[in-house]
Amino acid sequence: MAALGRKTWVIPEGWIPPQGASAQEDPTLVPHETACLLNTGPRDAQVRITIYFADREPAGPYTLTVPARRTRHLRFDLLREPEPVPLGTDFSSVIEADEPIVVQHTRLDSRRDSLALLSTMAWPAD
Amino acid sequence: MAALGRKTWVIPEGWIPPQGASAQEDPTLVPHETACLLNTGPRDAQVRITIYFADREPAGPYTLTVPARRTRHLRFDLLREPEPVPLGTDFSSVIEADEPIVVQHTRLDSRRDSLALLSTMAWPAD
Amino acid sequence: MAALGRKTWVIPEGWIPPQGASAQEDPTLVPHETACLLNTGPRDAQVRITIYFADREPAGPYTLTVPARRTRHLRFDLLREPEPVPLGTDFSSVIEADEPIVVQHTRLDSRRDSLALLSTMAWPAD
Amino acid sequence: MAALGRKTWVIPEGWIPPQGASAQEDPTLVPHETACLLNTGPRDAQVRITIYFADREPAGPYTLTVPARRTRHLRFDLLREPEPVPLGTDFSSVIEADEPIVVQHTRLDSRRDSLALLSTMAWPAD
Repeated sequence: MAALGRKTWVIPEGWIPPQGASAQEDPTLVPHETACLLNTGPRDAQVRITIYFADREPAGPYTLTVPARRTRHLRFDLLREPEPVPLGTDFSSVIEADEPIVVQHTRLDSRRDSLALLSTMAWPAD
Repeated sequence: MAALGRKTWVIPEGWIPPQGASAQEDPTLVPHETACLLNTGPRDAQVRITIYFADREPAGPYTLTVPARRTRHLRFDLLREPEPVPLGTDFSSVIEADEPIVVQHTRLDSRRDSLALLSTMAWPAD
Repeated sequence: MAALGRKTWVIPEGWIPPQGASAQEDPTLVPHETACLLNTGPRDAQVRITIYFADREPAGPYTLTVPARRTRHLRFDLLREPEPVPLGTDFSSVIEADEPIVVQHTRLDSRRDSLALLSTMAWPAD
Repeated sequence: MAALGRKTWVIPEGWIPPQGASAQEDPTLVPHETACLLNTGPRDAQVRITIYFADREPAGPYTLTVPARRTRHLRFDLLREPEPVPLGTDFSSVIEADEPIVVQHTRLDSRRDSLALLSTMAWPAD
């Protein structure tokens, strides 16, 4: 299949819920903020993420690869280099790839022993 | 009415929640991952779905028909041929039709006796 | 302000939750499926809604007015003419206006004494 | 980075949940309706928000600044001038900036000791 999508995606909303009580019981219930990146094309996509904040200069770039014909569900709380994304802090992200990809944003909030989900397609800026 | 929409839609997020405890009580509360496909046009639409994974080659095509002037709310966990979509596994999907359609992605997560919903329009790639 | 938006919007997902136990206590917690229609322009917008189903011909048109410079949060379960929208049934909707409007789709599911929300911008088809 | 986005964004859905019981315990659990505004560009963005209602003339403009290379997660319940946005009331918003920005809409509903989230990209009208 051809490489579908765009090369620059924006997610204005970002906030990683503080760790919920359920974390120990079931890893799929740990609160998380995710960007799902799909590369339908025949070449690996090199991806650069920049994180924007309310009161300081942006962080990044965070770099990763989405291999050809693969999806990658990226958890923002697992980003480590150049610095972790702080918990409980407002942020936004810009995702740039050297091949077309499609990006969707999802949050699972599992504080309080209930579940809440949000999701939206990211905004293609190119 | 004319056939509204596009012929290629992308959903980067995909994850079928493991079966919840509520499954036996009320079928409308079974956790599910859904693509809602609307064909407003005068001709049946033949649809091909390809499923992408994090660590293996894509699966599919899964084929189905959305009749003229009908909607089809497709549950990914009910796809059987050529192979079931695994539960609790990250995936993405590309939906291709031979007539214009409009596609929306919805998940119901009903684990833990609470309810969580997400939904977004799929991304039109053509 | 100018009239912002488009004249044809599509919402593939539609399903009105059966009445929840909370309905008697607080009307804002009654489960509902909503289309929010905003008319920023200087002229009233005449709106026609067509409802599509999985296994029968479409219903409608349902007609309403969104006055100039007003928003209207339309609950599908309150549509009565030409026929009510059945509960617990898959449907889709097409919303056509004679002036530009912007449409967003929201569901509140409050079964089980928990709350779940979904929302997405409708898809502009013109 | 260049200034990404558009200058006019529309959010048809708007409804601020009445204050939940959890408000006193944890400020991050206070119900809220939010617009996340990202300015990736090198110049501060001056933003004007107009609020539309079902049964009265629009309110506003509400004015704010999103500084260069910053995100601002704006809570509608904290808008004060020219007038507060009423709780439990249907509204819509139009967000206009003098520099390109990207806008995402999110609601947290935490009534009933459960959590519900919705989010969608706002609709770019220019």
